[in-house]
Amino acid sequence: MNNLLGRLQIYDYLYTKHSSSIVAKDMLNRKLRMGMVGGGTGSFIGAVHRIAALMDGEIELVCGCFSSDPDVSVASGKALYLPANRIYTSYGAMFEQEVLLPKHDRMDFVAIVTPNHLHFEPAMMALERGFDVVLDKPLTYNLDEALKLRDKVTETGKLFALTHTYAGYPAIKEARERIRRGELGTIRRIYVEYPQGWLSSKVEDEGNVQAQWRTDPSRSGKAGCIGDIGTHAFHLVEYVSGLKATHLCAELNTFIEGRRLDDDGAAFLRFDNGARGLLFATQVATGEENAVRLRIYGDKGGLDWSQMEPNTLWMKWPGRPMEMIRTGQSYMSHAAKHNTRVPAGHPEGYLEAFANIYRNFALTLRARMEEIVAEQEWLDFPGIEDGVRGMQFIEAMVKAGKTDSPKWVAFDDIG
Amino acid sequence: MNNLLGRLQIYDYLYTKHSSSIVAKDMLNRKLRMGMVGGGTGSFIGAVHRIAALMDGEIELVCGCFSSDPDVSVASGKALYLPANRIYTSYGAMFEQEVLLPKHDRMDFVAIVTPNHLHFEPAMMALERGFDVVLDKPLTYNLDEALKLRDKVTETGKLFALTHTYAGYPAIKEARERIRRGELGTIRRIYVEYPQGWLSSKVEDEGNVQAQWRTDPSRSGKAGCIGDIGTHAFHLVEYVSGLKATHLCAELNTFIEGRRLDDDGAAFLRFDNGARGLLFATQVATGEENAVRLRIYGDKGGLDWSQMEPNTLWMKWPGRPMEMIRTGQSYMSHAAKHNTRVPAGHPEGYLEAFANIYRNFALTLRARMEEIVAEQEWLDFPGIEDGVRGMQFIEAMVKAGKTDSPKWVAFDDIG
Amino acid sequence: MNNLLGRLQIYDYLYTKHSSSIVAKDMLNRKLRMGMVGGGTGSFIGAVHRIAALMDGEIELVCGCFSSDPDVSVASGKALYLPANRIYTSYGAMFEQEVLLPKHDRMDFVAIVTPNHLHFEPAMMALERGFDVVLDKPLTYNLDEALKLRDKVTETGKLFALTHTYAGYPAIKEARERIRRGELGTIRRIYVEYPQGWLSSKVEDEGNVQAQWRTDPSRSGKAGCIGDIGTHAFHLVEYVSGLKATHLCAELNTFIEGRRLDDDGAAFLRFDNGARGLLFATQVATGEENAVRLRIYGDKGGLDWSQMEPNTLWMKWPGRPMEMIRTGQSYMSHAAKHNTRVPAGHPEGYLEAFANIYRNFALTLRARMEEIVAEQEWLDFPGIEDGVRGMQFIEAMVKAGKTDSPKWVAFDDIG
Amino acid sequence: MNNLLGRLQIYDYLYTKHSSSIVAKDMLNRKLRMGMVGGGTGSFIGAVHRIAALMDGEIELVCGCFSSDPDVSVASGKALYLPANRIYTSYGAMFEQEVLLPKHDRMDFVAIVTPNHLHFEPAMMALERGFDVVLDKPLTYNLDEALKLRDKVTETGKLFALTHTYAGYPAIKEARERIRRGELGTIRRIYVEYPQGWLSSKVEDEGNVQAQWRTDPSRSGKAGCIGDIGTHAFHLVEYVSGLKATHLCAELNTFIEGRRLDDDGAAFLRFDNGARGLLFATQVATGEENAVRLRIYGDKGGLDWSQMEPNTLWMKWPGRPMEMIRTGQSYMSHAAKHNTRVPAGHPEGYLEAFANIYRNFALTLRARMEEIVAEQEWLDFPGIEDGVRGMQFIEAMVKAGKTDSPKWVAFDDIG
Repeated sequence: MNNLLGRLQIYDYLYTKHSSSIVAKDMLNRKLRMGMVGGGTGSFIGAVHRIAALMDGEIELVCGCFSSDPDVSVASGKALYLPANRIYTSYGAMFEQEVLLPKHDRMDFVAIVTPNHLHFEPAMMALERGFDVVLDKPLTYNLDEALKLRDKVTETGKLFALTHTYAGYPAIKEARERIRRGELGTIRRIYVEYPQGWLSSKVEDEGNVQAQWRTDPSRSGKAGCIGDIGTHAFHLVEYVSGLKATHLCAELNTFIEGRRLDDDGAAFLRFDNGARGLLFATQVATGEENAVRLRIYGDKGGLDWSQMEPNTLWMKWPGRPMEMIRTGQSYMSHAAKHNTRVPAGHPEGYLEAFANIYRNFALTLRARMEEIVAEQEWLDFPGIEDGVRGMQFIEAMVKAGKTDSPKWVAFDDIG
Repeated sequence: MNNLLGRLQIYDYLYTKHSSSIVAKDMLNRKLRMGMVGGGTGSFIGAVHRIAALMDGEIELVCGCFSSDPDVSVASGKALYLPANRIYTSYGAMFEQEVLLPKHDRMDFVAIVTPNHLHFEPAMMALERGFDVVLDKPLTYNLDEALKLRDKVTETGKLFALTHTYAGYPAIKEARERIRRGELGTIRRIYVEYPQGWLSSKVEDEGNVQAQWRTDPSRSGKAGCIGDIGTHAFHLVEYVSGLKATHLCAELNTFIEGRRLDDDGAAFLRFDNGARGLLFATQVATGEENAVRLRIYGDKGGLDWSQMEPNTLWMKWPGRPMEMIRTGQSYMSHAAKHNTRVPAGHPEGYLEAFANIYRNFALTLRARMEEIVAEQEWLDFPGIEDGVRGMQFIEAMVKAGKTDSPKWVAFDDIG
Repeated sequence: MNNLLGRLQIYDYLYTKHSSSIVAKDMLNRKLRMGMVGGGTGSFIGAVHRIAALMDGEIELVCGCFSSDPDVSVASGKALYLPANRIYTSYGAMFEQEVLLPKHDRMDFVAIVTPNHLHFEPAMMALERGFDVVLDKPLTYNLDEALKLRDKVTETGKLFALTHTYAGYPAIKEARERIRRGELGTIRRIYVEYPQGWLSSKVEDEGNVQAQWRTDPSRSGKAGCIGDIGTHAFHLVEYVSGLKATHLCAELNTFIEGRRLDDDGAAFLRFDNGARGLLFATQVATGEENAVRLRIYGDKGGLDWSQMEPNTLWMKWPGRPMEMIRTGQSYMSHAAKHNTRVPAGHPEGYLEAFANIYRNFALTLRARMEEIVAEQEWLDFPGIEDGVRGMQFIEAMVKAGKTDSPKWVAFDDIG
Repeated sequence: MNNLLGRLQIYDYLYTKHSSSIVAKDMLNRKLRMGMVGGGTGSFIGAVHRIAALMDGEIELVCGCFSSDPDVSVASGKALYLPANRIYTSYGAMFEQEVLLPKHDRMDFVAIVTPNHLHFEPAMMALERGFDVVLDKPLTYNLDEALKLRDKVTETGKLFALTHTYAGYPAIKEARERIRRGELGTIRRIYVEYPQGWLSSKVEDEGNVQAQWRTDPSRSGKAGCIGDIGTHAFHLVEYVSGLKATHLCAELNTFIEGRRLDDDGAAFLRFDNGARGLLFATQVATGEENAVRLRIYGDKGGLDWSQMEPNTLWMKWPGRPMEMIRTGQSYMSHAAKHNTRVPAGHPEGYLEAFANIYRNFALTLRARMEEIVAEQEWLDFPGIEDGVRGMQFIEAMVKAGKTDSPKWVAFDDIG
């Protein structure tokens, strides 16, 4: 059995679905080949992308331009054991030269992990040169770029993934499934929150590189906290609930004197089915780590998930006991199991959630290359529409929240 | 040693403060005598008030008018072992007749535990007849009554307590102390929430008496959820933070068709020091019990408290470990210890928090009667100002939240 | 309706059982009258007993001998608002004089809250004089006294309660019920633990009165930690599981140099159905509060309860989600509801668990006095057999654990 | 900068130590090459080893013999994208042929992930052929094999790692560091537990392959539960505490009728400094997942760690608040940071703990190959001595626990 299913089974203890209909044509008896833009020494998210990509044995890193500083790029590439001729000092050069390599050598897709203002250009170039793309969130520097990028994805037909990590957790897949199945009934009330504390003092003035670009409008875009983490919260809500926000009323704050972008915000949300939401994101909640939490209530039940204990999903019921739903258990949905690697009680975390995006992207890409039909679960990774949606959210938040006359802003009036 | 301190010590394992200056004049070698309005068979909060009042051996129940239904009042009084002549069938009669009893027999104060629309009249009467008052929250049916009642309290000089239970928890006293001491630095961000699920279906149509009056504008007032539990959340914020809200922007919702009052709401808050707050209260969070939670963040640290695990207070710090502060520990403040009965690890709960209001009210009242100076901690119970503040909050929420044009409402423009 | 049911209903929001068959003869339209031995100023458990006894409005304190020091007894009694003629300076005098009082004045029962070596004599005297008895645990100073006391209880037919507090928690009642119903199947494995840290240094030398008598063989008995808290753990196991331990193999340790009794111990247990148990108790687990925990596993499921979050009972199942069973919920058993005062989400704690013992004792005593049949739930409080069992446990632990040749000790070979 | 430090930095956000003294000789600008014995389709631990090995970009899989069934081995190797000539159908053939490959092609080390009875022979062969070894635990089928394997490791001087996963968690590294530093003072009391529920029915008869070999004495060895998970618990205790157990007194149970090995056990432990321990492991705790927990108490403080929330370490203190120590925080020790990949609040889990063993093994192996001195932290992975110790523990448990006359067994009397 040399097919995708075999590959899944050898890596996935819980993957029990047997489908004799999936027989790959064996055109591609090799790992997928990834190039990288950004992510050199000192980067946080670059290493995360690499771990996520490598973990499941489906992808190998073959080339990269890891920094705009040529020395850093070269040193980084060497530290990653790349041959000298596959370490590039400009991403333009990388795309140009990779495309000239023989097909059995050149990269299949590129992961772009640069700051926000450097998403658009390399992504456009990659697509134009025929490479599939994985891009870090938020999609682009502004909504205009986002719309152009969407057009390019459509035009080229290339595969596109956006790394909204939290959507990769198996308990989140389970939450989504259960809502789809109607277990909560009609959704009424949604609370989503994302408190962090790391920007509660002016660390951008103390040499913190991560803080510097995130608080700099020329690199981060119109929004700070809302773009950096608010978009994650917003994505999670729409992804899990299956609803679309139609309006929001918001407040954006900057608590640290001299900071140029928001470091805090909150919003009332209205959804297309009439449900109401409350969202907050803050980076000045002193002492908080990364406490994403999502609660959704319908007329039949509620659910509650916290990223810092990600393997647990709480189901809450009227008149019967709360249930503690746990990743890796036999009763989980196929959607959850497909994104789980180890049995219950062996905690999986952030890197595995991230890896699920890469794995599903890779499975879908491989299905394309092997000319087979991708399974439903493989297609489950955030894409260009999620990215555009996030940019609309940023626009709406800034429009609604940077004023002393609060108002409802309609998503339909954005971009 | 026959004085108040002795009384505290005999009931309070943790009460270690020795103050030779407190010597009561021994005028009052007896328990304080309480009468009650409301709280007959079938009442929830009536029994809570009685347990809270009796627990510490400082108060005895001597009379009551437990229901507007005379039969229920009599049956209730008998079940409480009251003599027939101290069971009244109207509160008017009770106040009139009690005042005529010899001083060594008649009640000292009255606890009023009726639905909201029946707070004002008995409270006014009691004050006018010279009785001190404990009143269930919210203060009155509307703001107008609240202001009049405040005038009456001022005019009569009687002692007045409002049972904002959550302010009675020792961990809440500790939180307040630590903010007072400056441990959090300047407060920036406050989140308070109060989710319940018990009104997520239309139980008022299914014979639930508690739900019936709470969803009935003629008994509950302008607001439903916001009056019933939103006021608790609001009180907790101002009590612990020491800040005053100046403005709010709100959304009020009624999710259950045909329900006549809000069953859900949320607000952005602004405080007098520039801090921002987010408050939500809901009674349609299906499956939730009574999950009050308060988080406050300053520039130096944060704190986090959840009512459903009330003996723990989390202190969160930048760059050093979170601390789990626990009721009953030796390191707690005097304010917390004074409101604690048992050592750490022996959980105290809702009834003890409630009893702390009664105990502090009783100690203060006794100090007045014995003509000694009350200790700082005895004076620490919610009073008439807290009640007026709560009514202003209801007014502001309704004004801001029942509109499709969101706006900032100033507390200064209310009442 | 002047009967016990009415009394329950007025204090118990959750008490929904209506039984027209319970009609008291109305012989006793008053609270039950309690006297107290021990529990003067400085006592921890004395105040706990009083709060527990008073809370539910069924009992009043009418007399006491609060200390062997006459001055302390008098000062304590005055602080408790007792009249001078009901404050005694010896318990012998108290029993003699109370029995001579007219029936409508004298105490109905006595609560004995002295150190272990002073349990037997006052308890015997009280029974002989015709008073019912509530006694703090462990039952007596040694097994010999325990057996004599059991004989006396049998002989006199008086009501006898032993305050094994943890058996009073509603979640513990629920656990017991569920095992009775067979939800766990056949019990196989039991783990019970009771870690405390307060004796991890030699506080008995630093003026800690609680520590002094507990580590003193002449006041505590043969065992220290094992008698003080090990007996609680052992009682909980047998009470909840419904099983009887038949053998144990133990290790007793004294970690603090110069301490005269054990401050730590552990045991393997064997039960009459073949189940195996593991019990540990320690007072040198530095930094621990009072972390009683009980886990029981059968062939169908498991349960898990922790005293420091007492309102939650975990049910664990193979192949389906864990359930979080919560005190105050509508789905709870009648046994649990009867011992609950407030709805779910309003935490009850240690004092309420303690009060449940007093309330059930009082209801049963009242049923006797009113000549009606006590309900099943009223009879549910620890009694003389539990006490004898605890003393046998202490004997067995000492016999098995104070040797370098471990052995199985049979309970049948003890006393 | 092409050296090991650069490699660490590019993968490790938290790795901030700069040491100019580490300059590799650049002999090895490539990943390390791993072969594998066992771990074909259907294996749980095989996939875990591969994920752990690949995640950090330091290791690539180059060959393997994945099953004793040649078809399974070939299919597995193909699913892992190995070239046909590197997929072997016997491990003997693999070692023989790999050693003949040119140095720049052949595997550097082998990971052996077979059931217990198939550890010894391939490990011996690999060492004899000059390959370094990573072996799954427990070390061997019996103690005799363990001692021979130790001799072989000594004789060949090859690097040897044993995958005691739980020792790889960063919070465990932190716990160990803090004990080393003396934060707990003198260790007195240790509790370690490992409850699972998956063998609470006779799943070995229902086609569960994992259960089949683990309950089969001919494949598992003398012990079932004790060998499978008891050894993990025991390793954790000695690893974190730095103490050595000298004696144990145990009870071994088999609860499921017809099962041929223990599925449950418990032991009293004595340590070389006089500390006492309690260990239990069970696979019949119905409904439990994988709830490893370690508690250690000294005269100055205590610590508490639970594998199912692995990023938190509790520090418990007398007279001051418990601290919640969190993986990824700036205050963590270098030992913990070296084994952490992402900032606090981004949970890491079981696979990362596993990967830490592989990463440290790889760093040490690389240091040898590049002829530089390994850093202290790289050397921190379980090795042959840990393995022998585990086999001694199994022997001692069986000797002490399979008898009705409990006794203390001395480790010195074992092998």
